[in-house]
Amino acid sequence: MSEIKDKSVEQFLTELASRQATPGGGSAAAVMGAQSAALTSMVCNLTIGKPKYAEVESEMQDLLVQSEDLRVKLTEMIKADVDVFDKLMASYGLPKETDNEKADRSLQIQTVLKQATEVPLACAKACSETIKISRIAAEKGNTGVISDAGVAVLAGYAGLKSAALNVYINAGSIKDRQFADEKLAELDKLLQGAEIQTEEIYQMVKDKL
Amino acid sequence: MSEIKDKSVEQFLTELASRQATPGGGSAAAVMGAQSAALTSMVCNLTIGKPKYAEVESEMQDLLVQSEDLRVKLTEMIKADVDVFDKLMASYGLPKETDNEKADRSLQIQTVLKQATEVPLACAKACSETIKISRIAAEKGNTGVISDAGVAVLAGYAGLKSAALNVYINAGSIKDRQFADEKLAELDKLLQGAEIQTEEIYQMVKDKL
Repeated sequence: MSEIKDKSVEQFLTELASRQATPGGGSAAAVMGAQSAALTSMVCNLTIGKPKYAEVESEMQDLLVQSEDLRVKLTEMIKADVDVFDKLMASYGLPKETDNEKADRSLQIQTVLKQATEVPLACAKACSETIKISRIAAEKGNTGVISDAGVAVLAGYAGLKSAALNVYINAGSIKDRQFADEKLAELDKLLQGAEIQTEEIYQMVKDKL
Repeated sequence: MSEIKDKSVEQFLTELASRQATPGGGSAAAVMGAQSAALTSMVCNLTIGKPKYAEVESEMQDLLVQSEDLRVKLTEMIKADVDVFDKLMASYGLPKETDNEKADRSLQIQTVLKQATEVPLACAKACSETIKISRIAAEKGNTGVISDAGVAVLAGYAGLKSAALNVYINAGSIKDRQFADEKLAELDKLLQGAEIQTEEIYQMVKDKL
């Protein structure tokens, strides 16, 4: 089966809508984050090399390296979400007749649940980075395409909050509460202030239109 | 040139990031709206036919018709945004040597600016619908996939606010202020309460996890 990123946008949307369990919200979160990073890259690309923006040239070059790195990472996360979900389903499907089987299955589920918490947490972290970099694009980028920085922050925020939902689901079923609580605390840190930042960046963009 | 929806997800993201003017934030808004509709469809598809949810069966069937209709519309809007942008660029490129040419060019720009306001307004309207239908999915859908309804509302809201930015840009350059003000009033109506609704639906989902 080919990877989602290699499928057409229309096919991706069709599969997202289908009764198949994957791709689901976790992949959608990664796609939104990747769109955010891509739009910050676009603003950089349309600022670099313009005499009017010579002053921010090197800052935009640096920003572009960051945004492209995030775009690649988030594009890979579309698949990571599907893979870990499939793994989780497979572990729930393990035999549970004997006591040994039950113990093995439970152990396997718990191991995969930890991974299934870390995958959306990594997505949330990357989305949180896209919000930060969109601010620089909004502040210093070519004002002719500044609305794209506004879309970037909205997409990054939606990706962050979407990924958070998948962290909550899986962390909730983890028996190792110390691990789960650590992950939830990391998530809380990422979410802290994200809404206000998003609103600030959006307003900054709107005021420049 | 093939349509964006026919390109791979990765190719779409690469083009979004590039120095080409299209696709840009307008297309990204439509993709987010389409993801929202798709996820509501997914919740419907995974609720319909389950004995546990027999009571909401017909409501979910109706909801699925609406969500699939919105998904198709929003997928088409990815291209509509590119087309109207290209048309706008072409009209700015018209000759402006003689007074006649100047008048013709100005008339043409103003005509296309109206279309370039209506296209993102239609996208904003469709995204606003995706928020409404995601509430029903969150309230009555299969709780096993309820997080997908949460991602649906976030994607729809990000699409709405993103499309709004493109309405603002183009409406601002329209000389027919009555037309522009009417469109801005329509947009305001769509935005009214959208943030609170999104927050409510997100909380409802989070409480069910």
